[in-house]
Amino acid sequence: MNVAIVGASGAVGHELIKVLETYPFPIEKVRLFGSQRSAGQTLVFDGREIKIELLRPDDSLFADTDFAFVSAGASVSREYAGVITAGGALMIDNSSAFRMDGDVPLVVPEVNGADAFDAPRHIIANPNCTTIQMVVALKPINDLSPIRRVHVSTYQAASGAGAAAMQELERQHADIAAGKEPTVEKFAHQLAFNVIPHIDVFTDNGYTKEEMKMHLETKKIMHAPHLEVSATCVRVPVMRAHSEAIWVETADNLDLQTVRRAFIEADGVEYVDDPATLTYPMPLHLAGHDPVYVGRLRKDLACDNGISFWCVSDQIRKGAALNAVQIASYILEHRK
Amino acid sequence: MNVAIVGASGAVGHELIKVLETYPFPIEKVRLFGSQRSAGQTLVFDGREIKIELLRPDDSLFADTDFAFVSAGASVSREYAGVITAGGALMIDNSSAFRMDGDVPLVVPEVNGADAFDAPRHIIANPNCTTIQMVVALKPINDLSPIRRVHVSTYQAASGAGAAAMQELERQHADIAAGKEPTVEKFAHQLAFNVIPHIDVFTDNGYTKEEMKMHLETKKIMHAPHLEVSATCVRVPVMRAHSEAIWVETADNLDLQTVRRAFIEADGVEYVDDPATLTYPMPLHLAGHDPVYVGRLRKDLACDNGISFWCVSDQIRKGAALNAVQIASYILEHRK
Repeated sequence: MNVAIVGASGAVGHELIKVLETYPFPIEKVRLFGSQRSAGQTLVFDGREIKIELLRPDDSLFADTDFAFVSAGASVSREYAGVITAGGALMIDNSSAFRMDGDVPLVVPEVNGADAFDAPRHIIANPNCTTIQMVVALKPINDLSPIRRVHVSTYQAASGAGAAAMQELERQHADIAAGKEPTVEKFAHQLAFNVIPHIDVFTDNGYTKEEMKMHLETKKIMHAPHLEVSATCVRVPVMRAHSEAIWVETADNLDLQTVRRAFIEADGVEYVDDPATLTYPMPLHLAGHDPVYVGRLRKDLACDNGISFWCVSDQIRKGAALNAVQIASYILEHRK
Repeated sequence: MNVAIVGASGAVGHELIKVLETYPFPIEKVRLFGSQRSAGQTLVFDGREIKIELLRPDDSLFADTDFAFVSAGASVSREYAGVITAGGALMIDNSSAFRMDGDVPLVVPEVNGADAFDAPRHIIANPNCTTIQMVVALKPINDLSPIRRVHVSTYQAASGAGAAAMQELERQHADIAAGKEPTVEKFAHQLAFNVIPHIDVFTDNGYTKEEMKMHLETKKIMHAPHLEVSATCVRVPVMRAHSEAIWVETADNLDLQTVRRAFIEADGVEYVDDPATLTYPMPLHLAGHDPVYVGRLRKDLACDNGISFWCVSDQIRKGAALNAVQIASYILEHRK
């Protein structure tokens, strides 16, 4: 396969390179694309130096490409979707540009991989990071009994705001340790020694766009228009894995042992839950890992048909780059 | 009034001194008590140096005391409750030792101040910090329509584990900034750049004691045996104010404008909620402040009779020292 990475110099672009270097994916050729700012620079893929090409409005640019992994923001995705798909390439888009479009599938392979084959515009959308890890954990529960509602609060790492945001968090801590006043650029407020209950912009109903993504994308991915999600999304001073406290209400009363077994057997889930040894998923230790980690499983004390659990996953990896590559891989494995 | 502070050299003890210096409370004399480790040291109260006395099993020790504010851990409270109350002093206990005892009132003045007068053992318990700030925010909602259930996830500061834990978090960050390996002593795991979904010990149902405190204490304080709380308590790398993401289901469907007005008028609540200017409560900026801050108010998208909000309060202040002093103050104001 000939693959292209658009936005190669960003945090997700870097991770796409790392994932493609190790993931069992049949690669013939890799091309990298970027803006004026990064074009001309070189990045290393599998020991070879590859020059970043300028992304430009040229319909022949992706003529030899099978899969284009695009992670350069929603406006770039909107502007270049036509160029990228003009020659038949399949665009796997990491931005929010097309996620809710009716003719663009929104795919997490463990949950709705088959949807990837219904992509008339040659665009498949990668869901938002917080949604991806949540639906991987919801799937095995929903298979036992339909989920009615979900309450979720997030503990989101700096990585969700990009590489510069991660550097800002580190710099803020270094400044504070050195007795200097920390500076704020990438986030709305200082993140070091703080939590910020606000990610992406606010919408009219008081929820942020990030929170509404979890509400809307979950319905679409799980084909469950009546599955209602209420989210509170919060930025915390962690580098790159997101955590989520989740409550689920199902149609039937599930016993914990059944849910535990379902988590253990579920695709993409790693069940880590041993209170006796103080073992539960934590973001510090799970950066760079592939699975969606689940732990702290217990009955919801406020709801008879409810269960509660804790979920951690690397935001750049399963939350972005890995899921995109898994979509392409799913298509290669399952196409007729 | 003659007051005593037991555990004067701890984080809450220090804050009790600060609160008593400024709160409109009629003080005649202050005595400070501590263990062997701190006895003999002096602390400054209102410009005067006061020597820390040794807490010892002597029933005449508190003979001249009206109010004893006790914050030296549950085992000290259990061991010395008899000594402290022997001479008629009212013990306002910050530990978990007596909170669920039927003959010990558990009091947050804004919510159930009158309960303070039913203290046959001369002991009044101060609730857990996470419960205090939550019930102050729940009260105005419950007054509009009875609350059926609450889902809450916490973002708890290092301060809840004491002064040494706060120093550990600072030291971990300084070590990381200096390229050194951080050391872990006070918490189960490294807290810097991490979140830990575990506070206090685990109980048999998979919840931690901290989570069960929110479940049990809320029922007792609000006189609401059927109000069910399911909590997930998480330590975050913040110094001293706790944050909580809360969902509330009420018997009736409340409109947001009514709830907003109730928050604005509620005792002890400061309503801070202006998405347009990115204004919402955050722990970094609210350390040392008295109120329970509420913001991010919106309808619960997953529950018709539900609302969701965000709540921040200083854990050492309203979550401990201030609430204790307010209990004493309430008693002085309302006694017949």
